[in-house]
Amino acid sequence: MSNTRELYQQYQEEMAQLADVRFTGAVLQWDQETYLPAKGAEFRGRQLSTLSEIAHRMATSEKLGALLHELQGSDGLTPAEQKNVQLTWEDFSKQQKYPAAFVRQLSDAINKAFHAWMEARKANNFGVFEKDLDALLQLKKQEASLLGYTGHPYNALLNEYEKGATVEGIDRSFAAILPQLKNLLDRITSRPQVADAFLQKTYPKDKQWEWGMWLVQQLNYDLAAGRQDISEHPFSTSFNPQDVRITTRVDEQDFANMTWSTIHEVGHALYEQGLPTEGYGLPSGEACSYSIHESQSRLWENNVGRSRGFWQHFLPELKRYFPDQLGDIDLDTFYRGINKVQPSLIRTEADEITYHFHVAIRYELEKQLLDGSLATADIPAYWNEHYQKYLGITVPDDKRGCLQDVHWSHGSFGYFPTYSLGSFYAAQFYHAATEANAGLVSEIKNGNTANLLSWLREKVHASGRLHTSEELCTQVSSKALDASVFLHYLETKYQFIYGL
Amino acid sequence: MSNTRELYQQYQEEMAQLADVRFTGAVLQWDQETYLPAKGAEFRGRQLSTLSEIAHRMATSEKLGALLHELQGSDGLTPAEQKNVQLTWEDFSKQQKYPAAFVRQLSDAINKAFHAWMEARKANNFGVFEKDLDALLQLKKQEASLLGYTGHPYNALLNEYEKGATVEGIDRSFAAILPQLKNLLDRITSRPQVADAFLQKTYPKDKQWEWGMWLVQQLNYDLAAGRQDISEHPFSTSFNPQDVRITTRVDEQDFANMTWSTIHEVGHALYEQGLPTEGYGLPSGEACSYSIHESQSRLWENNVGRSRGFWQHFLPELKRYFPDQLGDIDLDTFYRGINKVQPSLIRTEADEITYHFHVAIRYELEKQLLDGSLATADIPAYWNEHYQKYLGITVPDDKRGCLQDVHWSHGSFGYFPTYSLGSFYAAQFYHAATEANAGLVSEIKNGNTANLLSWLREKVHASGRLHTSEELCTQVSSKALDASVFLHYLETKYQFIYGL
Repeated sequence: MSNTRELYQQYQEEMAQLADVRFTGAVLQWDQETYLPAKGAEFRGRQLSTLSEIAHRMATSEKLGALLHELQGSDGLTPAEQKNVQLTWEDFSKQQKYPAAFVRQLSDAINKAFHAWMEARKANNFGVFEKDLDALLQLKKQEASLLGYTGHPYNALLNEYEKGATVEGIDRSFAAILPQLKNLLDRITSRPQVADAFLQKTYPKDKQWEWGMWLVQQLNYDLAAGRQDISEHPFSTSFNPQDVRITTRVDEQDFANMTWSTIHEVGHALYEQGLPTEGYGLPSGEACSYSIHESQSRLWENNVGRSRGFWQHFLPELKRYFPDQLGDIDLDTFYRGINKVQPSLIRTEADEITYHFHVAIRYELEKQLLDGSLATADIPAYWNEHYQKYLGITVPDDKRGCLQDVHWSHGSFGYFPTYSLGSFYAAQFYHAATEANAGLVSEIKNGNTANLLSWLREKVHASGRLHTSEELCTQVSSKALDASVFLHYLETKYQFIYGL
Repeated sequence: MSNTRELYQQYQEEMAQLADVRFTGAVLQWDQETYLPAKGAEFRGRQLSTLSEIAHRMATSEKLGALLHELQGSDGLTPAEQKNVQLTWEDFSKQQKYPAAFVRQLSDAINKAFHAWMEARKANNFGVFEKDLDALLQLKKQEASLLGYTGHPYNALLNEYEKGATVEGIDRSFAAILPQLKNLLDRITSRPQVADAFLQKTYPKDKQWEWGMWLVQQLNYDLAAGRQDISEHPFSTSFNPQDVRITTRVDEQDFANMTWSTIHEVGHALYEQGLPTEGYGLPSGEACSYSIHESQSRLWENNVGRSRGFWQHFLPELKRYFPDQLGDIDLDTFYRGINKVQPSLIRTEADEITYHFHVAIRYELEKQLLDGSLATADIPAYWNEHYQKYLGITVPDDKRGCLQDVHWSHGSFGYFPTYSLGSFYAAQFYHAATEANAGLVSEIKNGNTANLLSWLREKVHASGRLHTSEELCTQVSSKALDASVFLHYLETKYQFIYGL
């Protein structure tokens, strides 16, 4: 028994040191996206590679392996501790499949691809990115082989982001939901369109920044355990639950982008700030999965942040920042405007319906890249063809087409589907929250989201990664993931907005 | 031969990876001083400890030891490569003396002491810092034993900052120079004092920031390979020669502090930006020593930045930023004002003469702490007594007394003397530069310091750490360090300013 406790403490300390190295890498990446001077990129790249190599060595060390082996056979651990050990063992076994040289190779390739992507965006030319992307893709195929899979090679990569996800399952989900979304979209586009010209007015940068900083605090984002900065692409990142940072982008001509991407990143950050600090470095201190992470950002961005009730309180506040732009806009006009549905080019700016076509196109494309039925060089053609087919829009150039997302340049293939799953979970969790707490909706109408956050902290955040997404979903909402909750949410919402 | 090349490349790569980890730690520290949210400090502390432990493991690895051993006996290395290997071997042997547990203990103690120092400053009470400082001091004594020394235990720590420095040597230097400085100071204080009321006016923060950003570029600090931010205490830090950052502090009531501390940090940063990138991780890519580093900051701050010629060009420029504050100030009034000599409380704000008494007090104090003739608890009393004795001033409180410097909270004992050495080297280098380049002084009068920087790049920066301070000094100025050059510089300067 006392030996078990000692071993468990050693395991905790090993994992905490591994977290130190990984979070250090995250600090370097945050700096890279916010404050790094132009010439600093070259050496920063190798510094990140070295850190990821060290992290890999630590995550696959004989010492950790021996500790996990011993702990798995030990009595005297609580169920949560057993689960930590078991999940770490799974991670350990997976990490063992990566040779150290491959880890460095991958890190270097990602660094190259990221900079090529930046250059390609500047040049508005996918061709500038193609070679480095293809090199990275070959490594990702190799990674799929190293990890092993049954069925489609893409399954191996999907599992990196969503444990248990398969091509078969996601195909089935999209097959079930896309026609219904298409149907809803068609009914909406046949109705008179809503006015949102007020969102296209000029909103001065400094006022947007002030408004954003005020808003994040209203949402109970703790600025003593985080901060907001400017980056080209908004993101959130965590170095521990006491230091969870968000970034935003401020465009005078695009007020909506700043506001809802800020609420989105706050959603991610509230999750990280709510993870148990005593689980630092352990599965119990980590987010459940990418889809559950996304459920938190989308719940705050959409279910709360695009709800009529929320703006009942916050529109008058917003008008104090922008009296000239919004003085004559009433609640329903505002609510309709911020929920306008319209097929468009950019995923991150898409409405709640068309968003999932953006995801589906990327998912299909990645699947085909992985099994070799699509060549890297053919990405732009595939992309443009499917935007026409699914959304009926013509992609004018690569920057607003297949160069718009950072993901591939980071080597993140298999990530996109979690965005759609996140929306489905968000709707289901929000529904469960309002079912369980009769007063919640009227609290939100008064600008008070504290109890909603407390509920999420208890139901979603507190258990870290000790359950799978599906297990957590069942615990939180008493049933498995059911996309019809999401569809029902959309139906109700757009019935009001478009008078369907 | 080909084996030697291969070994050397392996050695280079090992050292580059070690540099990656050390510079990563520097990024974390930069972040800690600039942007870290309050609650983030706790885990940041352990992240830094883990990194320093990893760096220590790498710096003492068997693999590196074997490489160095083999390379030392190899033919086929250039003299510079041989020197790299030899210096790395010395570092390696020294690092071997630190047990890994001690490294972590020290890092933890520093983290604790740093936060205690911050708290003590807030409380304006040395007592709040005493316990953690004493614990750190005990570890530094232990470090001196681990490193070994002949004579005074302080010698071991002095050597960390200045190779070859000893209590005997520094005692001798101070004994030679302090009486002459005292004599100069007495002659100055017997003269009518210069007016500097214009420096005490209000200088708006945003204008100071703009002026500072403009000035650093005039001095050829490359903002594509660096950046400036705000921190409580100005510092410069480097993550590689392409990413060298400075910070400043802006106080509306203290324009002089911002301007000359900025020039000071730029001096450090120009040195780091001038180090050879191909020496990344090797002695040939590192700064020579702390005193030579300080020579660069002081040369720019004082020999250039407090010279009449420099302001002949820059005062009219400065007046454009601050017409109300400086419109009626002529060059000589300005020049006299910015060089006012007056015993004062804060080292970093001291003039070029009294500065060295600040250093001497700290040096004497550290010496006695190290040999046990002074107790940690007695620091404030010792401090206050000697400020009275040397500078004739009464220290009103700990914040403006023995809590003013961050150094001890970082465990930096033995650092202060390099500040005085830096001034001496600066005078000697600047003298050599003007001797070698007839046009330099008139170029500076035209605001052009590019050739001075080129000369420093070639003579001082290019050789990295391949020479000792003394060797470098002899190469640059054709003679060993000679503090009479510094004294002569002061005499000439203050004869004009005070009409001695």
